Amino acid sequence: MEFSSKLLENAVDQMSQLPGIGKRTALRLVLHLLKQPQEQTENLVNGLQKMRENINFCKNCHNISDTQLCEICANPKRNEEIVCVVEDIRDVMAIENTSRYNGHYHVLGGKISPMDGIGPGELTIYPLVEKVKKGVVKELIFALSSTMEGDTTNFYIFKQLEGADVITTTIARGISVGDELEYADEVTLGRSIINRIPFENSLKNAGS
Amino acid sequence: MEFSSKLLENAVDQMSQLPGIGKRTALRLVLHLLKQPQEQTENLVNGLQKMRENINFCKNCHNISDTQLCEICANPKRNEEIVCVVEDIRDVMAIENTSRYNGHYHVLGGKISPMDGIGPGELTIYPLVEKVKKGVVKELIFALSSTMEGDTTNFYIFKQLEGADVITTTIARGISVGDELEYADEVTLGRSIINRIPFENSLKNAGS
Repeated sequence: MEFSSKLLENAVDQMSQLPGIGKRTALRLVLHLLKQPQEQTENLVNGLQKMRENINFCKNCHNISDTQLCEICANPKRNEEIVCVVEDIRDVMAIENTSRYNGHYHVLGGKISPMDGIGPGELTIYPLVEKVKKGVVKELIFALSSTMEGDTTNFYIFKQLEGADVITTTIARGISVGDELEYADEVTLGRSIINRIPFENSLKNAGS
Repeated sequence: MEFSSKLLENAVDQMSQLPGIGKRTALRLVLHLLKQPQEQTENLVNGLQKMRENINFCKNCHNISDTQLCEICANPKRNEEIVCVVEDIRDVMAIENTSRYNGHYHVLGGKISPMDGIGPGELTIYPLVEKVKKGVVKELIFALSSTMEGDTTNFYIFKQLEGADVITTTIARGISVGDELEYADEVTLGRSIINRIPFENSLKNAGS
């Protein structure tokens, strides 16, 4: 792409560094900003700058937060004995949206992935292990994505916790509610048969 | 979407003001910036800010440019007697990419669209009319998109130029090179039959 302006080219270059934004999309976005009042660009720029400079992580669960303790950790009504281990803040938001969970979280910040150079030290695994070994946590729920990296991470944490007095569980994998069996992949369908639950339990869940 | 941080929420809100970027995509982009070194956010922010504050438009063709006259208008090898009328800078880039055009451009900045509150005064139509009436321009090529708004704009400019000593042409519409006739829409196919050209001419074009 040949640009008639270095300023424009630089803005497009920077914009296209974002994941999923190619040069063409970046140009479209930047030209949009040029057509809008200057205020919009200023608001965007300020929003990004302030966030990047002042962002805080909850010292207990490592969720993004403006305060030292996030709202969930600071809420006395939440059960601190159950901790759900997730990859990032989006997973926290997804689980919070279900309104079915009343425990705490622990945000790892990723998964162990030697291919991408991410070892246990890059994540918040050791703080989690420390927290569990203090003895308050009774149950750890693994809610990482079920990929090889997710499984490796689960297993690594599980091994680290050997001897600790804690139950470890993992969220149920199975056919989505409303899905047709014939279109489900075999691995998921297989797991949902192996991990079948008593019918009475499913009635109880549907009712609440 | 419930956010655990106001800073994050504000950044996502601002990001999702951009066209085609929803809240989820905005969150993904913002979290990506958080994972990258702070430098990347600074570069993005500076790039956008500098561009928005210092951007210039060529005083002759209204293309985006860092100088008073853009590279095309300042180039003595380009033919100033032919002016191609386009909607925005992306069209200039597209035509420049073909390497088949050696004239000047005139960037309107949009199309006449009463629905969106865009009248002739919001565009650079009057400067174009003035430029043509000075007598240097011998041919005006309309290259706006062939929508109702594009056609209206073409016609408006055409009427404004009544009596001026200028040829007005429009770029050829037809079946794309390499396309199958059976999949072409009727309007395009119809136009390409009506506006058929001598076979010798097509040979000449393919050869160059």
